[in-house]
Amino acid sequence: MERVLISELGHWMGKDVVLKGWVHRLRYLSNVVFLILRDRTGEIQVVIDPKLLHSLSLSTESVVEVRGVVTPEPRARAGYEVAAQHIKVLSRAAAELPLTINGPSLDASLETILDNRTLSLRHEKVHPIFKIQAALVHGFQKFLNKKGFVQVFTPKIVKSGTEGGTELFSVQYFQEKAYLAQSPQFYKQMMVGAGYERVYEVGHVYRAERHATSRHLNEYISLDLEVAFIDSEEDLMELENELLDSMFSYVAQHCSNELKTLGVVLPTVPQIPRIPLKTASKILAEVYSKTDLNGDLDPEGERLLCQYIKETRGSDFVFITSYPWEKRPMYTMPKENGLTGSFDLLFRGLEITTGGQRIHDYAQLRDNMIKKGLNPIHFEDYLVNFKQGMPPHGGLAIGLERLTAQMLGLKNVREASLFPRDRHRLTP
Amino acid sequence: MERVLISELGHWMGKDVVLKGWVHRLRYLSNVVFLILRDRTGEIQVVIDPKLLHSLSLSTESVVEVRGVVTPEPRARAGYEVAAQHIKVLSRAAAELPLTINGPSLDASLETILDNRTLSLRHEKVHPIFKIQAALVHGFQKFLNKKGFVQVFTPKIVKSGTEGGTELFSVQYFQEKAYLAQSPQFYKQMMVGAGYERVYEVGHVYRAERHATSRHLNEYISLDLEVAFIDSEEDLMELENELLDSMFSYVAQHCSNELKTLGVVLPTVPQIPRIPLKTASKILAEVYSKTDLNGDLDPEGERLLCQYIKETRGSDFVFITSYPWEKRPMYTMPKENGLTGSFDLLFRGLEITTGGQRIHDYAQLRDNMIKKGLNPIHFEDYLVNFKQGMPPHGGLAIGLERLTAQMLGLKNVREASLFPRDRHRLTP
Repeated sequence: MERVLISELGHWMGKDVVLKGWVHRLRYLSNVVFLILRDRTGEIQVVIDPKLLHSLSLSTESVVEVRGVVTPEPRARAGYEVAAQHIKVLSRAAAELPLTINGPSLDASLETILDNRTLSLRHEKVHPIFKIQAALVHGFQKFLNKKGFVQVFTPKIVKSGTEGGTELFSVQYFQEKAYLAQSPQFYKQMMVGAGYERVYEVGHVYRAERHATSRHLNEYISLDLEVAFIDSEEDLMELENELLDSMFSYVAQHCSNELKTLGVVLPTVPQIPRIPLKTASKILAEVYSKTDLNGDLDPEGERLLCQYIKETRGSDFVFITSYPWEKRPMYTMPKENGLTGSFDLLFRGLEITTGGQRIHDYAQLRDNMIKKGLNPIHFEDYLVNFKQGMPPHGGLAIGLERLTAQMLGLKNVREASLFPRDRHRLTP
Repeated sequence: MERVLISELGHWMGKDVVLKGWVHRLRYLSNVVFLILRDRTGEIQVVIDPKLLHSLSLSTESVVEVRGVVTPEPRARAGYEVAAQHIKVLSRAAAELPLTINGPSLDASLETILDNRTLSLRHEKVHPIFKIQAALVHGFQKFLNKKGFVQVFTPKIVKSGTEGGTELFSVQYFQEKAYLAQSPQFYKQMMVGAGYERVYEVGHVYRAERHATSRHLNEYISLDLEVAFIDSEEDLMELENELLDSMFSYVAQHCSNELKTLGVVLPTVPQIPRIPLKTASKILAEVYSKTDLNGDLDPEGERLLCQYIKETRGSDFVFITSYPWEKRPMYTMPKENGLTGSFDLLFRGLEITTGGQRIHDYAQLRDNMIKKGLNPIHFEDYLVNFKQGMPPHGGLAIGLERLTAQMLGLKNVREASLFPRDRHRLTP
């Protein structure tokens, strides 16, 4: 007999079925045992004659196979239950587990939750996070595929750092010293130049930063894209606005149950306001008397500005534009007055995107490197592409875990990573 | 004026358009210049009055913007051409480039092709490879999404090796020594145990093997999946058979132009024969007098067996099953007679998949580790999951570059990697 999924039981009323799943809860009454069985699609009450359990010492979180009949039962949550005829233990869970999975919330520290990931992921308030995350990624891919983008896979072992920075993990690559890529920046630009024009990548990036905040991971998933033939960074903000709207709609459509379980109501993605950094700083100074900024927003500034935009414009998102030249990497397109064609996107108080137009002219790029104190010789593999026909272009990157966390109201970005890597965590 | 893509020009007959793209070819006649312009969607002939080029010294592979009128021209390949009114150079390519892009084939060594990747990827025999590869990945994702799989992202920086092997790249992770993951094996099993039941990952894997063959890469993309509640490895072969059929159909449907340009006719994916390794060895001995095998197939054996299966069964694919216990990793489910519930898939002479049922019982897994000479203490983070309710399960992995190469008849797997990493190549 084929296994039936719990979500499909309604179609099997009065019939024999085989169920497979985890023992979510057990309740022993004098002449009956109630077992709540859980599979990837839901939960169902199974009624068991204690004799059936004779030689089985059932424990919660064990994996079992249940044969039984689907029976109407108005008192059960689903309106029906399964009257068991046979139960088999497929994998026995230890009687004592480090986490209790069937409570309304996981009463444990984040450390304990992450140390026991296979268990904590079974909890109803944790499980949906990664189904929603997967839907965010599909939404991203679907939208961009439709817009003519090509998905690419670029190397993560690289000979030198992307932006001349020092926060790199080093790898022993046979006899050579190599690094883990901070971002696919150079490669996605090269793919634009290679004639694909529009590319995206969903991939791991690595930052050897010694931060230990609720916002930082040392390994995370970056949703990267790069587009040829833009007129300015305005085109990119328009694209991201439309992209996010499409991703949020995709999640709303495919994860309504998951969102409901988490008690999350998705924000609509509006026409996102675009505020020059200078204006943002002025608002912070005037409205919040915050005057300690140094050419960029700090976490407090990001939070306050989002609060201001939410109150005055009703938007959960805001683009901060026109960052000064000093604050952006060497490939960023300069504009007049010492500014650049670049932007960040803040979502509910947190930066989730950095993007901008890139320099596409060889001489300008080389000059900009030198002005930034970088030696063009170290970037020869990258620079050479700008002598071979490079269209005007730009792009952006969205941090997947941050986007997920902000969307779902998670307090720590680690909650949106299956197996986070940080300064102190390398396992499981 | 909005840019028009070359593939859409047919809808603009008699109208003014703006085109953007690369100068594919230039032909100077006495009173007219023919420019073949290339963008991501195709090529078009542009007719230019030499006066327009007055101060421009056009070079092939430069990026240009052309304004002109779409005009019927029966002698042009498309049946129409564009009569230029204005040309602007957006990015000038050097007069001398290391590769000629507009010839019928790239007359260069693989080394030169890979050294000049942004250029070589523009060639019509190279460009389609990665559009087809992207379609293979989408086909993979689409099929599995429909089957209830969840896409996951697991860490690539790990504390220890997956299979106790030694062919690992080491990473300096702050104060600790870590490694790059050989495969997501442990993590995908843990995700099955975490209640997702069916997961897949499209991600980088790392093998520090010192091979320098046409079949090996040190960094490649693995299409991994893992499924709970299987009865045996037969379920996995059935799933992969259906999956490959669906992926090939997806490519046929979405990449007909690319396949045509490459001159590739896709094989149909039949009911793939399943041959025990013992039978395969017997065939090799009897038909090809090949008797030098030692419990596994070597590359010559794989080629000859595929030749035999093609001749006798008409299939480009063959599953080799029932590998001996000695040849498979410690997590492989043992069967009777010293065999295991495992398989490889060969495609046109090359292994593209390894898969099998896994052990799901804690004691059996621990014993198997010890029998393999491994110390269970080193696998504590993995083993603990088997004491918390782990369903029967199994999975497989497909090497994306190998699949792409075999599908398209490429001689070297490096041709199916955008920026391959091998023993001697760490750039670009």
